[in-house]
Amino acid sequence: MFETAELGRTLDKAHYAKRVPALRTELLELQERAREARLPIFILINGVDGAGKGETVNLLHEWMDPRYLSAYAFGAPSDEERSRPAWWRYWRALAPKGRIGVYFGNWYTEPIVGRALRRLSKDAFDAELTRIKSVERALVDDGACFVKLWFHLSKKAQRDAYHELRSSKRTRWRVTKEDLKNQRRYDRFRDVSERALRETSTGFAPWTIIEAADARYRNVAVGDTIVAAVRERLDHRPAARPSAEQRPPPTDGRTILDTVDNTQKVGDKRYQKRLEVLQGRLHTAFEELKAQRRSAIAVFEGSDAAGKGGAIRRVTAALDARDYRVIPIAAPTDEERAQHYLWRFWRHLPGAGRMSIYDRSWYGRVLVERVEGFAREEEWQRAYNEINEFEEQLVRHGTVVAKLWLHIDQAEQLKRFKEREQTSFKKFKITKEDYRNRAKAGLYVHAVHDMVERTSTDVAPWHLVAACDKRFARLDVLEHLCRRIEEAL
Amino acid sequence: MFETAELGRTLDKAHYAKRVPALRTELLELQERAREARLPIFILINGVDGAGKGETVNLLHEWMDPRYLSAYAFGAPSDEERSRPAWWRYWRALAPKGRIGVYFGNWYTEPIVGRALRRLSKDAFDAELTRIKSVERALVDDGACFVKLWFHLSKKAQRDAYHELRSSKRTRWRVTKEDLKNQRRYDRFRDVSERALRETSTGFAPWTIIEAADARYRNVAVGDTIVAAVRERLDHRPAARPSAEQRPPPTDGRTILDTVDNTQKVGDKRYQKRLEVLQGRLHTAFEELKAQRRSAIAVFEGSDAAGKGGAIRRVTAALDARDYRVIPIAAPTDEERAQHYLWRFWRHLPGAGRMSIYDRSWYGRVLVERVEGFAREEEWQRAYNEINEFEEQLVRHGTVVAKLWLHIDQAEQLKRFKEREQTSFKKFKITKEDYRNRAKAGLYVHAVHDMVERTSTDVAPWHLVAACDKRFARLDVLEHLCRRIEEAL
Repeated sequence: MFETAELGRTLDKAHYAKRVPALRTELLELQERAREARLPIFILINGVDGAGKGETVNLLHEWMDPRYLSAYAFGAPSDEERSRPAWWRYWRALAPKGRIGVYFGNWYTEPIVGRALRRLSKDAFDAELTRIKSVERALVDDGACFVKLWFHLSKKAQRDAYHELRSSKRTRWRVTKEDLKNQRRYDRFRDVSERALRETSTGFAPWTIIEAADARYRNVAVGDTIVAAVRERLDHRPAARPSAEQRPPPTDGRTILDTVDNTQKVGDKRYQKRLEVLQGRLHTAFEELKAQRRSAIAVFEGSDAAGKGGAIRRVTAALDARDYRVIPIAAPTDEERAQHYLWRFWRHLPGAGRMSIYDRSWYGRVLVERVEGFAREEEWQRAYNEINEFEEQLVRHGTVVAKLWLHIDQAEQLKRFKEREQTSFKKFKITKEDYRNRAKAGLYVHAVHDMVERTSTDVAPWHLVAACDKRFARLDVLEHLCRRIEEAL
Repeated sequence: MFETAELGRTLDKAHYAKRVPALRTELLELQERAREARLPIFILINGVDGAGKGETVNLLHEWMDPRYLSAYAFGAPSDEERSRPAWWRYWRALAPKGRIGVYFGNWYTEPIVGRALRRLSKDAFDAELTRIKSVERALVDDGACFVKLWFHLSKKAQRDAYHELRSSKRTRWRVTKEDLKNQRRYDRFRDVSERALRETSTGFAPWTIIEAADARYRNVAVGDTIVAAVRERLDHRPAARPSAEQRPPPTDGRTILDTVDNTQKVGDKRYQKRLEVLQGRLHTAFEELKAQRRSAIAVFEGSDAAGKGGAIRRVTAALDARDYRVIPIAAPTDEERAQHYLWRFWRHLPGAGRMSIYDRSWYGRVLVERVEGFAREEEWQRAYNEINEFEEQLVRHGTVVAKLWLHIDQAEQLKRFKEREQTSFKKFKITKEDYRNRAKAGLYVHAVHDMVERTSTDVAPWHLVAACDKRFARLDVLEHLCRRIEEAL
């Protein structure tokens, strides 16, 4: 695979001087076009040490408009990063739409180094590559352009490069002890890298191998590759297919919500007693989870007036207010809109020993955004898979994920709307939109059914809560949370 | 001071039930008004342990619209937080305009606990209180409303409260070992708290002491205090005074920029040699700073075409691309606009071992925002002080702050504009606005003069760079950076 990058290609000074101005103009023009088109560009810089990766980052700062370009490097993770799923640090560094992110020391580095040094088994390595592919796929689906550059040097060229740098006092700092150590493992790194490139050179995010021995040749190759990739993406942006008209659910079809027994009730006395018991139990369970330096996520979904807020308050009352955060999901900010829709959820992931309670969540993509047509069909269709992978990463990290759908029927909802309008301090909760949404109840039921079908997984199952009786619902919510945490301990 | 909160005030169930609905309605209405007025509200919850602070946070979530209310608690700082100035963690948790932030375990906690346990000297404690006052002042000046609630319990009431909680298996977890330990230090905490309250009960952000022994009385007192404070602020928002017309500088007045000797030049050969030497020196110095787990900030300011970008690239070329971040300051995002103007700079502060290079900076407030009238006079006038305090916090944390003004004269600027227009890949840098700005050159000179006068402090002095000769300027920039870092080691 790397033989094609050991041809000894060079570019002489005169040709370089002639090529560069045009290349820079092209890069700047494309950067400007990408900005207007709100295209996010991810440039990955990987490859052999000593091949000029750092210099290339400087070069890109020089050749392009640095105001819309940011470089990210990842060393050892901070404790905030360690206390969240591994990909959190990458999500927090994703370039927003219209900008360029240059990543070196990126998500390929750890798996490759880990495998080369045999810290990672072959299976774990392959699993990591698969994970990378699906994240890149999700970003490309969302409109991103990937330029993945692999800088290659032959064994001899690497040795020569180090030798030259070390021969001058002024540049010898550029070669570290670790560089020299890894040099001895050149062949092993080469094999592992080859596998990584082969596995992750996908149609939507291919690798380009850059012969890096000659700086001038390398620079022009980098520029050319970026120009070609960005231009291709700008000229052939996949057209958004119009969404099909939302079909109402089959009129006499039963859905998963019909399995919810909403006749269940709890009397006030029993409720008060059970509430205290369950809150104590939840507190104890969560303290144990905290002691294990793990975190929890509770997702509350349900139709309007289903009692999410009331249930959440019974949960938070059992917790130390230092430990939880209630995250109500409303309209995204412009920083959030400039990212993949999952970004805003990654952003607020709880650290070790914390619980994030989402009042509505990433499921908005397949519920309200689907029903109201805010997301195109291809977008919400692929969201099921993206969500499953997101939650799988959470669970693999040790986070407890509990997902609750609070179900009330149409009659109960209307009753609650009317009640709220009678209570002065609850009026603010009822708007015209709430009534309008009722007309789409059938579509929502259908969407919930699909959601449960597609995202109730082994690691993160949905729990449907009969919510017509508020007391019953609150106890059920608490009990489910206790169970989820206790099972995970 | 606390005697007035030991009167044994209570509220019976019937009165409570009668008061609460009206109070909740008022709170919701004010919350809505505050949101429309984009008023940020900071509710601080401090006081004696066992006085119901956590319960109050839950209560506020219940009484108000939780979508626009966030609670923040601060325990031991994370390593990301430790590697930045102490206030970074608070700035990152500031509620944006129109929202409510509830803070417990906040910026008062550490000084008070530290002083009570004698970890903090009296002087250090007083200095911390002064710092708090000036941060709160800056936020209030920017439009924030502070509600600072101090929950008080008499020694006996605290003992009773703990006793009751511990007497039931279901609630005994609420009293921790540390609570019991601190209980024995009640008097000492009382004295320290009294001093803190007295010192920080300012006209713009006063404390309210809440008698907390009776939960119903406490809840209503909290609600009433919030209502009164927010209403007062909404009804009497200080009117923005119109800015005075920008005066041109006295026609024959010399400014600090006249002291810059722009005839200095460096030949190409000497430049190349010195450049390498200085880059090596900068690299070495920064490595030492990194070894001390400290960080650096380089601020680049200067008129258009002064050569900031070129100088920055000569700096970054000396550094490992993993260690620096170039932060170009453009228009703020909406999340940034919803905060105090310094928030966006706090946000990007470098962690330990990193350098942040600002291409334009917080000085925009007293330069472009002043000259163009984007900031009102009272805003940019008070900014000098806010900036000095900001930089003082950086330096106290151990961050090296270097501030560079690159100075070119009008003739040189025009020459460079024309040159850029001739170079295809630099055309993007020249816009009509650049020419328009030239007409205001006199106002800018005046603003620079004031900026240097007001913000060139001992801990963070300005360095004026003669930038008509690019080579001279780049060497001077590098040398100044080296010197600043070396002096700090």
